[in-house]
Amino acid sequence: MMGSDLHFRDKIPVAILGATGSVGQKFVELLSSHPWFEVAAVAASEKSAGKPYRQAVNWLMPSPLPEFIGNLEVQKCEPNLPCSVVFSGLDASIAGEVEAKFAQAGYIVISNSRNHRMNADVPLLIPEVNADHLELLHSQSYSKGKMVTNPNCSVIGLAMAIKPLLDKFGVESMNVVTLQAISGAGYPGVASLDILDNTIPFIGGEEQKIETEPLKILGKLSKGRIENCQLTISAQCNRVSVTDGHLECISVKLKAKASKADLIAAWKEFKGEAQALNLPTAPQFPLHYFEEEHFPQPKRHKLLEKGMAVSIGRLRECPLLDYKFVILSHNTIRGAAGGAILNAELMVAKGYIFW
Amino acid sequence: MMGSDLHFRDKIPVAILGATGSVGQKFVELLSSHPWFEVAAVAASEKSAGKPYRQAVNWLMPSPLPEFIGNLEVQKCEPNLPCSVVFSGLDASIAGEVEAKFAQAGYIVISNSRNHRMNADVPLLIPEVNADHLELLHSQSYSKGKMVTNPNCSVIGLAMAIKPLLDKFGVESMNVVTLQAISGAGYPGVASLDILDNTIPFIGGEEQKIETEPLKILGKLSKGRIENCQLTISAQCNRVSVTDGHLECISVKLKAKASKADLIAAWKEFKGEAQALNLPTAPQFPLHYFEEEHFPQPKRHKLLEKGMAVSIGRLRECPLLDYKFVILSHNTIRGAAGGAILNAELMVAKGYIFW
Amino acid sequence: MMGSDLHFRDKIPVAILGATGSVGQKFVELLSSHPWFEVAAVAASEKSAGKPYRQAVNWLMPSPLPEFIGNLEVQKCEPNLPCSVVFSGLDASIAGEVEAKFAQAGYIVISNSRNHRMNADVPLLIPEVNADHLELLHSQSYSKGKMVTNPNCSVIGLAMAIKPLLDKFGVESMNVVTLQAISGAGYPGVASLDILDNTIPFIGGEEQKIETEPLKILGKLSKGRIENCQLTISAQCNRVSVTDGHLECISVKLKAKASKADLIAAWKEFKGEAQALNLPTAPQFPLHYFEEEHFPQPKRHKLLEKGMAVSIGRLRECPLLDYKFVILSHNTIRGAAGGAILNAELMVAKGYIFW
Amino acid sequence: MMGSDLHFRDKIPVAILGATGSVGQKFVELLSSHPWFEVAAVAASEKSAGKPYRQAVNWLMPSPLPEFIGNLEVQKCEPNLPCSVVFSGLDASIAGEVEAKFAQAGYIVISNSRNHRMNADVPLLIPEVNADHLELLHSQSYSKGKMVTNPNCSVIGLAMAIKPLLDKFGVESMNVVTLQAISGAGYPGVASLDILDNTIPFIGGEEQKIETEPLKILGKLSKGRIENCQLTISAQCNRVSVTDGHLECISVKLKAKASKADLIAAWKEFKGEAQALNLPTAPQFPLHYFEEEHFPQPKRHKLLEKGMAVSIGRLRECPLLDYKFVILSHNTIRGAAGGAILNAELMVAKGYIFW
Repeated sequence: MMGSDLHFRDKIPVAILGATGSVGQKFVELLSSHPWFEVAAVAASEKSAGKPYRQAVNWLMPSPLPEFIGNLEVQKCEPNLPCSVVFSGLDASIAGEVEAKFAQAGYIVISNSRNHRMNADVPLLIPEVNADHLELLHSQSYSKGKMVTNPNCSVIGLAMAIKPLLDKFGVESMNVVTLQAISGAGYPGVASLDILDNTIPFIGGEEQKIETEPLKILGKLSKGRIENCQLTISAQCNRVSVTDGHLECISVKLKAKASKADLIAAWKEFKGEAQALNLPTAPQFPLHYFEEEHFPQPKRHKLLEKGMAVSIGRLRECPLLDYKFVILSHNTIRGAAGGAILNAELMVAKGYIFW
Repeated sequence: MMGSDLHFRDKIPVAILGATGSVGQKFVELLSSHPWFEVAAVAASEKSAGKPYRQAVNWLMPSPLPEFIGNLEVQKCEPNLPCSVVFSGLDASIAGEVEAKFAQAGYIVISNSRNHRMNADVPLLIPEVNADHLELLHSQSYSKGKMVTNPNCSVIGLAMAIKPLLDKFGVESMNVVTLQAISGAGYPGVASLDILDNTIPFIGGEEQKIETEPLKILGKLSKGRIENCQLTISAQCNRVSVTDGHLECISVKLKAKASKADLIAAWKEFKGEAQALNLPTAPQFPLHYFEEEHFPQPKRHKLLEKGMAVSIGRLRECPLLDYKFVILSHNTIRGAAGGAILNAELMVAKGYIFW
Repeated sequence: MMGSDLHFRDKIPVAILGATGSVGQKFVELLSSHPWFEVAAVAASEKSAGKPYRQAVNWLMPSPLPEFIGNLEVQKCEPNLPCSVVFSGLDASIAGEVEAKFAQAGYIVISNSRNHRMNADVPLLIPEVNADHLELLHSQSYSKGKMVTNPNCSVIGLAMAIKPLLDKFGVESMNVVTLQAISGAGYPGVASLDILDNTIPFIGGEEQKIETEPLKILGKLSKGRIENCQLTISAQCNRVSVTDGHLECISVKLKAKASKADLIAAWKEFKGEAQALNLPTAPQFPLHYFEEEHFPQPKRHKLLEKGMAVSIGRLRECPLLDYKFVILSHNTIRGAAGGAILNAELMVAKGYIFW
Repeated sequence: MMGSDLHFRDKIPVAILGATGSVGQKFVELLSSHPWFEVAAVAASEKSAGKPYRQAVNWLMPSPLPEFIGNLEVQKCEPNLPCSVVFSGLDASIAGEVEAKFAQAGYIVISNSRNHRMNADVPLLIPEVNADHLELLHSQSYSKGKMVTNPNCSVIGLAMAIKPLLDKFGVESMNVVTLQAISGAGYPGVASLDILDNTIPFIGGEEQKIETEPLKILGKLSKGRIENCQLTISAQCNRVSVTDGHLECISVKLKAKASKADLIAAWKEFKGEAQALNLPTAPQFPLHYFEEEHFPQPKRHKLLEKGMAVSIGRLRECPLLDYKFVILSHNTIRGAAGGAILNAELMVAKGYIFW
């Protein structure tokens, strides 16, 4: 069933599900010149199927639509695509069923959707944080295929910034208030009349994801299962008038004593499996700490290390918990398509995807 | 020395210090049709003095510059103005000295600046919250005049929303993350290149004010002195791309058990001295609770009750403290000029300012 | 068939068609405290019908939803509403048919939609410009009812600013480039991802309206018909990141010689039937000329005279035509709901609507 | 006097005058990895001189400050810099004098400032349009040095789009209305309170530049002098809430008949000296025509060909002149620093700058 084509033999052919949506477009943009993967197919809704991708898509990315992908005929999201790996940017309303169907049919599904994230046998993966969770794949129930997910766009940066603190000092609890970019809502997403000169203190379902997903991500693998991390998280989410880049104001209570310098050192030294394996999309330094008191900022730092690094700043003591600080990550790159691609690269390096 | 003029005898003549600045302009706008006060003089820097106000000011308010105020000749900020009450919108760099000079010379100084706020004998006044603090005036050191201040623009709404919770349930601690409007930085203030499509996670001096001013405001008057409220506050401040209206994400730990309904009832029932005395600028209900999960929002609710009410919403349980919620208040009306005018009205009603 | 209700007898009962849309909401806001009209019914799509208006609407106006209108049950857009006057904010996709049905059934239809604007027997009305066009109603084909329309939101201000020039100096041709606010596109309208930090040089159908509607509006009534004004107009339309207020850069070629002072005088002196009859919604001065070189601006001048006046500025010689200048008008007040209400007021004053 | 340093011998050492300003920073960003030039010195005001560039600058560029330039000690703007070529991003208030001093001292001055643009012996250069104007250098009055300028940021794109029309069909007159980005005003530039949710219909001095600079740029070199192009231009300039990218709505009257297809072909075929010489910063196609009716847009197309190409769209007949269309160019890249660098590259290729 898996397609094979002489043209692709020097790269791994992949397909993108939900390719016309905003995460799908970011997949197209990032994969169009990827050293390991080649876009063999783009798939979307029945409405788009049969048209050249160029026509079906309302291209919103900053770089021009790559010629060869613009010419691809959009396929239906059915498991007869000429590849064995699919990246899914499908809307949550259909992702659950479609992704399961692909996995069942033997595809390796790299999903950005929320539907399967909390399944006990599905890794909720960040290569710098919990690469070992890939082991869950061995017990996954899909007959032939596999499924891996990446966390919510606000959770990835948060989990990455917390990981070295957890490892070195322990983290007891955490308060998180987000200022999230409009691109997180997809397209057309937020109406301009709602957000121009405004802030909206609500994002449906987001706070619950922030309060739960990190527990799994930061959990320990034990006897083939994840034991959730014991950690209390409280989240408040806001939408602000920013195109890309989620900012988060965090305060943490640590288990051990640590100085400001200790925390900054922990962040600066932090590297993970993605760096050890020198994956093509991995940032050189996953975490950057800024000394400037007015940094990080979405406009200035979202594209740090091609949008794959997390920026941290403003570490100071908290009168209530122990420390407070600010993080920033690019929500559609590190927080979505870029994160998923890094997951796939990890799977190649670890032998879960064959060249 | 106090001026007197037949023209003004049916209203109380007042002057505005720093009248060309952005808070000064808001004073002009709000006082131009005030039922009790009449603008008898506008004073500003040497550079502006001598010019008609119309020429000296770069008028930024939404309503047109009132004709008769436009014609006033700008005075120097020296204590020879034809009135006994001055509203000060002076920049903090000079407010300390100038305001003291006016108070010393016998003026009643209603200040919006930060310089004297924390002086032990100066009321940091919100008529709905601590009208009794006016008693401090009896022991104030200025030979003849008096000085009253209003809190920082982020603190007013916060103190008002917390006051009924404190009275009914006790508040142990509080975490506050603000999303503040650009008008809070005055004019020209924030550069557009810095804030368009951006968020800045820093506002100089603001966090410290939020962590300290409420302790005085919510403090108890005892033997002619304020005993600070015992309350731990942690604040993180952000500047967002919004013209007016500060949004704050708050979480609180209460001393007594209370249900969501208890908190909402406490907010809805809340009234203070400003309402009891039916002061002209007082909102009918100081606190409005919204049931809609995406409210309050700056664009939609900043002008509630002419910008003098505080909007509250999204009350829900907090996994870390007890409850979390969102508040919104208009930073240049309730949080600055309008708040100061309400303070002056309270002083008239209480006999500290004579008609 | 016309409803009658003791409660309304001191005002004229009216209904709003398309009451949940953005123009409909502006009708609700402006009519809720109108001295002559009272909202007797709100009508909208089948989806909303039967619900209280409060529930059916996503209220977007800056002032709170009026209590008594919030409680009204939304009706279907069928001609059995308890009144004889309907204001239509219906979407153009259905306005054509529904409005005709109401007119046919005997209602006076005051429409803001484009569908019937160019019908030869339908006045395209601006009370300051062509009040005499109401005469068309005598020959209108609807059996019992009547229909009046107001121009496109970009055309109203344009026609008003050109009218005195046309009358005094003659106008041969005109170039118009617009910078239009997002509220002109309704709700949800323009996606925030499309317009934040962006400008879109296209608005569907808008240029054609600007090039044709003024010819009818400025036309002469002759033997019961409109003779179009002979005038060449070229338009280019842009959407900018502004909530309310359309700005237009205009250049004109006049027929007679005229000095800058002549033009400014013509604008300042301009008054029309709306002012002569002292209609409640009429601005005192329909046109305001600003001498400041950086005026008018949407943010500062859109609400001039409650949003019913047109602001003009920057008159200077044009190397290509004769003069160039800038105009600004509030697109949802003067350019939509407010303009329609002024039309209805004119009809009351002229005896076309009976009290 | 010219510096020489073994370290630089494989590239041409250059200095940046006004290096801390916003154009200066863009020079730093673009030159930091240039194949021909190497930044040997950064110079700025007395206030900055002596500090490491990293400390003196408020770095605003999207890419991180290059390490080796951050470490350079800021020099005074005096002609003792270790190079023979200087790029000037100086403010117009001092550029006139300082640039002349450098040219007089023997430097080749590549200026982005307006001061010397209209000097008869100074080329106002766009390599695709008037590379032959470099001949003016032979008669330039500076004893040893030379000076070349690039046009105003709104003029570059305009002149490039008009050039092929002029050559093929002749252009009689032109109306231009601009929608200009805030970065054109430098830093801090436009106050956020002025431009958020607003449009400002005025930019000081800009209209006069648009009406005059193209006449020189498009002029013919004859007997060592420029004969201005005979062409009437009328301009209206607006500032909009966009970070980068000037949009211009243009209408033109041609001398010869031409179809839409003719114009589009002229644009698509257009190439100039920059392309013929394959200069490193030259776009492959200087002009791109978009068929989509809502293109070009600043957000989507400003970075086309690394910000060096001009985007054109919406060509349609004009009822008043002959044709109307829209152009877009990146105002700080093609319209400022990038344009100046391309000028310098042309001078290298033509032998005016020695390697």
